[in-house]
Amino acid sequence: MMAAGQPDAALKLRVRELYEAYFACLDSQDIRAWPGFFTEDATYLVQSEENRRNGYAVGDISCQGGAMFRDRAAAIAGTTVYERRLLRHFPGNLRLGLLADGVVAAEMSYLAIETVADEMPVIFSAGRSIDEIRVAADGLLFRRRQVVYDHGFIRHSLVFPL
Amino acid sequence: MMAAGQPDAALKLRVRELYEAYFACLDSQDIRAWPGFFTEDATYLVQSEENRRNGYAVGDISCQGGAMFRDRAAAIAGTTVYERRLLRHFPGNLRLGLLADGVVAAEMSYLAIETVADEMPVIFSAGRSIDEIRVAADGLLFRRRQVVYDHGFIRHSLVFPL
Amino acid sequence: MMAAGQPDAALKLRVRELYEAYFACLDSQDIRAWPGFFTEDATYLVQSEENRRNGYAVGDISCQGGAMFRDRAAAIAGTTVYERRLLRHFPGNLRLGLLADGVVAAEMSYLAIETVADEMPVIFSAGRSIDEIRVAADGLLFRRRQVVYDHGFIRHSLVFPL
Repeated sequence: MMAAGQPDAALKLRVRELYEAYFACLDSQDIRAWPGFFTEDATYLVQSEENRRNGYAVGDISCQGGAMFRDRAAAIAGTTVYERRLLRHFPGNLRLGLLADGVVAAEMSYLAIETVADEMPVIFSAGRSIDEIRVAADGLLFRRRQVVYDHGFIRHSLVFPL
Repeated sequence: MMAAGQPDAALKLRVRELYEAYFACLDSQDIRAWPGFFTEDATYLVQSEENRRNGYAVGDISCQGGAMFRDRAAAIAGTTVYERRLLRHFPGNLRLGLLADGVVAAEMSYLAIETVADEMPVIFSAGRSIDEIRVAADGLLFRRRQVVYDHGFIRHSLVFPL
Repeated sequence: MMAAGQPDAALKLRVRELYEAYFACLDSQDIRAWPGFFTEDATYLVQSEENRRNGYAVGDISCQGGAMFRDRAAAIAGTTVYERRLLRHFPGNLRLGLLADGVVAAEMSYLAIETVADEMPVIFSAGRSIDEIRVAADGLLFRRRQVVYDHGFIRHSLVFPL
């Protein structure tokens, strides 16, 4: 799935750091900062591998354009949570390619671990994201992020993005 | 267990990318591409830590030489699978050393997560590999790969390599 | 939580390698080598997120100064273990910042997987560490390491450090 060219070592490091900043945002549940990782024309989709394989555009979360990201973030920030849960996102295997026009194609595996109240941590989700990252002088932003989880569905109704 | 010298930063990056390409091959179950990660005289063994500690050469999979890798790949490619399962391999701690003659000694932890049909992901295997990687102008290849899992046995009969 | 400045690429690599060496030490249960990762005036604390959030200084392990680290290591080395268990520590998301005086502030996620005897691997602990690392010509050492696990308590009485 990767494009022909490869980013150089410096760009690879910047891409890794984008993911580290993104996962740190999710881990800290700093949802107000989440839209800031995307371009104004970005698309975002969270769906199961089965839906992706079947070519369905449906998913647990779908956003097109900055306003939808900000609405989503505001809705989550306003949601009352009755049970404290921590989510920790582990970056996994990362594959990169260069598209045209200063855009990096990336496929990144992730493992999300959830800890609820006094229970032991469990696997919340495992999968990968298929991303396009716009490289600009002022930083890297996702212009497309498609999170594809390996399992059939997300436990609990999904509130937080992945 | 590591040799005295250390690869430089550029070589370290190339070794990480070999592992990323290898795990991507396993994750995509592109078994036909698997033998291409090894030299023609490579050895490959998957075994439990208990067997390794006792010095037993036995394992779940054992290959010596390119023909055995290709036979194994062909056999797996021809196996009918009745239940869809996804495997996702997470690279972990990596330790490197330099051996003589342009060979890198590597020890890499891994965590393999399995998702079967509509169930939630579970830990399929955790362990490490003790590897020797030949560095050549045209790329890096494993000339030895010994996968040592921490647990007593592999669930299901092992079909795919690790 | 991160300081303003960022370490350069070479220093980032050295920090990652400190963590890799540290986790390799834990994985190999080479407890005698453990105090050597800390400065003589280092502080070390393992505690739950709940205790951290409440500002409690209590934890499962607490050390101040090299002598306490060495005492702890000697006590563990002298402990009879009746059941063989393997622990494997996976580095996760890493965030870095520069403090004054050649000190790096780091926050590193970890996932610790435990395998007991003939059972399958399970999640032993998930969380992060909030660390300060002193950079000197002869190497990097922790001068502060605070391990904060996401769950309510550590299973089994904790013997090994994290």
